[in-house]
Amino acid sequence: MRPILIVCILTISLFSTYAQEDFYKAYRQEWLQKAEDNKPQLVITEKKPVRVINIVRDENSFQHWKIVPHSAIDSFYSTTFKKNQSTILDFKEHITGYFTFSIRPTNITPDAPLRLKFTFGEVPSELAVSFEPYTGSLSRAWLQDETVTVTALPQTITIPRRLSFRYVKIELIASPSYDFYVSDIKCNAGTSVTSVPQELAPSTEEIIKKIDQTGLATLKECMQTVYEDGPKRDQRLWIGDLYLQAMTNNYSFGQHDLTKRCLYLLAGLSHRNGYLHPCIYETPEPRGDERLFLLEYALLFNATLKDYLLATNDKQTALDLWPVAKKQLDIIYQYVDKDGLMDFARANREWWIFIDWREGLHKEVPLQGVSIFALQETYKLAQLIGKEDEVKNVPPLIKKMKSTARKKFYNKKTGFFAGTINHQVSYASQLWMILSGVATTKEAQTALLNLSHARDVSYPGTPYLYHYYIQSLINSGLHSLAKQELKKYWGGMLEKGADTFWEAYDPNDDFLSPYNFFPVNSYCHAWSCTPVYFIRKYPEIFQLK
Amino acid sequence: MRPILIVCILTISLFSTYAQEDFYKAYRQEWLQKAEDNKPQLVITEKKPVRVINIVRDENSFQHWKIVPHSAIDSFYSTTFKKNQSTILDFKEHITGYFTFSIRPTNITPDAPLRLKFTFGEVPSELAVSFEPYTGSLSRAWLQDETVTVTALPQTITIPRRLSFRYVKIELIASPSYDFYVSDIKCNAGTSVTSVPQELAPSTEEIIKKIDQTGLATLKECMQTVYEDGPKRDQRLWIGDLYLQAMTNNYSFGQHDLTKRCLYLLAGLSHRNGYLHPCIYETPEPRGDERLFLLEYALLFNATLKDYLLATNDKQTALDLWPVAKKQLDIIYQYVDKDGLMDFARANREWWIFIDWREGLHKEVPLQGVSIFALQETYKLAQLIGKEDEVKNVPPLIKKMKSTARKKFYNKKTGFFAGTINHQVSYASQLWMILSGVATTKEAQTALLNLSHARDVSYPGTPYLYHYYIQSLINSGLHSLAKQELKKYWGGMLEKGADTFWEAYDPNDDFLSPYNFFPVNSYCHAWSCTPVYFIRKYPEIFQLK
Repeated sequence: MRPILIVCILTISLFSTYAQEDFYKAYRQEWLQKAEDNKPQLVITEKKPVRVINIVRDENSFQHWKIVPHSAIDSFYSTTFKKNQSTILDFKEHITGYFTFSIRPTNITPDAPLRLKFTFGEVPSELAVSFEPYTGSLSRAWLQDETVTVTALPQTITIPRRLSFRYVKIELIASPSYDFYVSDIKCNAGTSVTSVPQELAPSTEEIIKKIDQTGLATLKECMQTVYEDGPKRDQRLWIGDLYLQAMTNNYSFGQHDLTKRCLYLLAGLSHRNGYLHPCIYETPEPRGDERLFLLEYALLFNATLKDYLLATNDKQTALDLWPVAKKQLDIIYQYVDKDGLMDFARANREWWIFIDWREGLHKEVPLQGVSIFALQETYKLAQLIGKEDEVKNVPPLIKKMKSTARKKFYNKKTGFFAGTINHQVSYASQLWMILSGVATTKEAQTALLNLSHARDVSYPGTPYLYHYYIQSLINSGLHSLAKQELKKYWGGMLEKGADTFWEAYDPNDDFLSPYNFFPVNSYCHAWSCTPVYFIRKYPEIFQLK
Repeated sequence: MRPILIVCILTISLFSTYAQEDFYKAYRQEWLQKAEDNKPQLVITEKKPVRVINIVRDENSFQHWKIVPHSAIDSFYSTTFKKNQSTILDFKEHITGYFTFSIRPTNITPDAPLRLKFTFGEVPSELAVSFEPYTGSLSRAWLQDETVTVTALPQTITIPRRLSFRYVKIELIASPSYDFYVSDIKCNAGTSVTSVPQELAPSTEEIIKKIDQTGLATLKECMQTVYEDGPKRDQRLWIGDLYLQAMTNNYSFGQHDLTKRCLYLLAGLSHRNGYLHPCIYETPEPRGDERLFLLEYALLFNATLKDYLLATNDKQTALDLWPVAKKQLDIIYQYVDKDGLMDFARANREWWIFIDWREGLHKEVPLQGVSIFALQETYKLAQLIGKEDEVKNVPPLIKKMKSTARKKFYNKKTGFFAGTINHQVSYASQLWMILSGVATTKEAQTALLNLSHARDVSYPGTPYLYHYYIQSLINSGLHSLAKQELKKYWGGMLEKGADTFWEAYDPNDDFLSPYNFFPVNSYCHAWSCTPVYFIRKYPEIFQLK
């Protein structure tokens, strides 16, 4: 995920009081060392393309492009490239790594350089639609088209950038007089996943098994030397994604060292004012993005740490990072008024509040909800490590905030929660009122059951918010609906051909893009892997027929 | 130089009698070893850009593009790239090597990849005209535009292909949200030249000094691990270029090992039928182009070997390669009839006959001339190494061929030599009749003096043929005209801004291209370096006021 930067640069004033001193000065080095100590070795597997395909226009296919099998890969290798011409190869699975090809002459001696263009795609449309004119809000360089000048044959060439793809299109864009072969195509694909999760119960429906598999593939691809949000884009650790990835990892691969590494990295690279940056970069050396602060992501660090502790019983890490968790609560303290209401207008001016990629979404209610949720999670963490004393103020604050939220936001007539600044009814508002425990079970059920047929509802734009929807259904006892909705939403991606789950998905809009250019979307995106978590945490809901 | 390949593929029949056995089987390995033993170490010098320039449209400048100084290089380095935007840097000299740049962030953390396009040019137009649509007959990949995706900052990147240029344009074609610096631009420039030629006499005119300097720069840039024809294109050893380069080297750098290497390479990589390929490639391993045979280039090998022997007294090499020289004469023997006339029509069907890049040039007379010239040079070589006995047939053949040529081609009325198949009057025909000694001095002078004001004359299209023009003037005693023409032609390139001399140059047509796309021309081309040879071999003509 990438914000429009202007939105998320904190006002200087907010931090001026902290500018003098580094809040974690004494710990940073140790934290970064622990992060480094827990850096996984990538497992590299050589992957090869399986077949040649065509991608043809088809209104009934996802984003209007359909795969049509063309021939076996052997026929590609045994045919000279000029006869193959623009060729699309299919690896038949999503991979992340370094792409290598060889090029060798026929019996005619090459007498000039040639130029090949490689376009890598996670989904067919990336190889079919023109990237020009580029209208996206993110750097055009995220798109995976690379031009290679080959000056001598034979030669084996590795494209320097890491790529994330299932398909590769190869085009000859500067043709020499001679013909040649492209051969030995492979990708050294990497992931830090080494373990194999437990099999699902035999009673599990096929569609659930497939969703689980695809979720695991998604998570696996994103598990590199950190939990990346997406291996194609942004290729970095975001707290919101981490929260869901770590949660899913707890119930699948169980590779907790990676979670530990990420928690220490985030802490070690936090701002000197003590607040966490929502994302960090690993290369060329680990660093946080000084410009970025994302309110609820900072808070979700605490929930991630709590979940990690529960999964591992690694008290040392929890104790080490407790000061960070405690410090993040200051964000809430700054904006909550004496009645327990978050000052949304001010917070929204001073922070980036994300909640979901959905244009026009109003975030007043979700902010209140996620703040309460974070307080609850943090207090649970404190209890687990015997630090309740340090956050004695939290339980009464939660109580006050919940009570105020109900009073301010709940509309008995409609049965929905809505904001005071704007009365929009959104999934996000209902979900965060439910997850924070503001809504009673009855209210939650009413809201959830009515959402789908109410008018002018703001729907989720991403699997990220959909995760909280499924969790809300489960928390509200609507188990069968949870299963049905999970199957419908993630199964919908599968029906549309997903090999891994996507960053953005609206069943009614294949072209939805938070960045105004759908090919730049990430089609293997961590925050969409959580069906694996649901299926495995709640076998009684998801693994029975 | 690159032929249209269909023209130059020998008919199978021509070689079928030789197909069974390798003519030089016993020697090849030894020859290639000697070539390898004489491979020079490149001298690498780090070159840096000197200033920022603009290139602006100007009808009075070469190819309508003019350099306008913009700022010192320091200002480029100290300004962020987004402020610089599309920037052209000037190294202020022609260089050949590997281009490296660094890219570093400002105090804003980079959050996305970026993409830079580098366009390298030997002349300003290469950075100013669009390469699309590309209409050239050679591979588009010769054009030196390279796109680089930068995925992490800071980083130092070297573009993998060797480049040949004075100017580089840098454009940001995929812009991230942050700004950055491009810095530490350099090129590790290579040449095998290690010696410094003698200074010219103080009496030498400035323009001659400048032509000499520029010729030396041209030759130096082409002297890599072979004599390349052009370091931008074709980056390989061609016999015709070698002949002129070695001749010039004999009178300047005196690095005879490189000539020796090239002679052995050509011999070692010749066709199994015993004929030389006109060009060879060094990478990925040395090889000849099986498809290519160029009639007069094969013959000019002999002249090169003779010149080499005279310059070095290295009799061993001459003796080693004598069988090759002798074998090339078979080419002539196949086509010369009992009266001593070369069967142009058949030779032209079966071989590529080059002579010059000039559309519509008729080559019947030049073929006769260059064949006689080659016989003479080869006989001189035989005399120098005591092998006259093996070519006893040559002197009478020369006599017969000269006599026939005069009879068939000389038109007393016009004072020009012209063919029997086509009566075109060309520089090429006169020059080769003069260099072969067919024309008497008087006839030569008449023809040469009348050429410039006769009608429908086919003019030289390249410095290659212009070399033979200057040599003909000298041979005919027209010394002052030789000097004048040399100053006019090569001085003309200097006036148009040449840093090195060009592959193709017609004073009346800046856009002349043998390949239908003038930016793909080579603007540092070996065969144009011979003023150095003339100036230094004939000091009495060129070094006196």
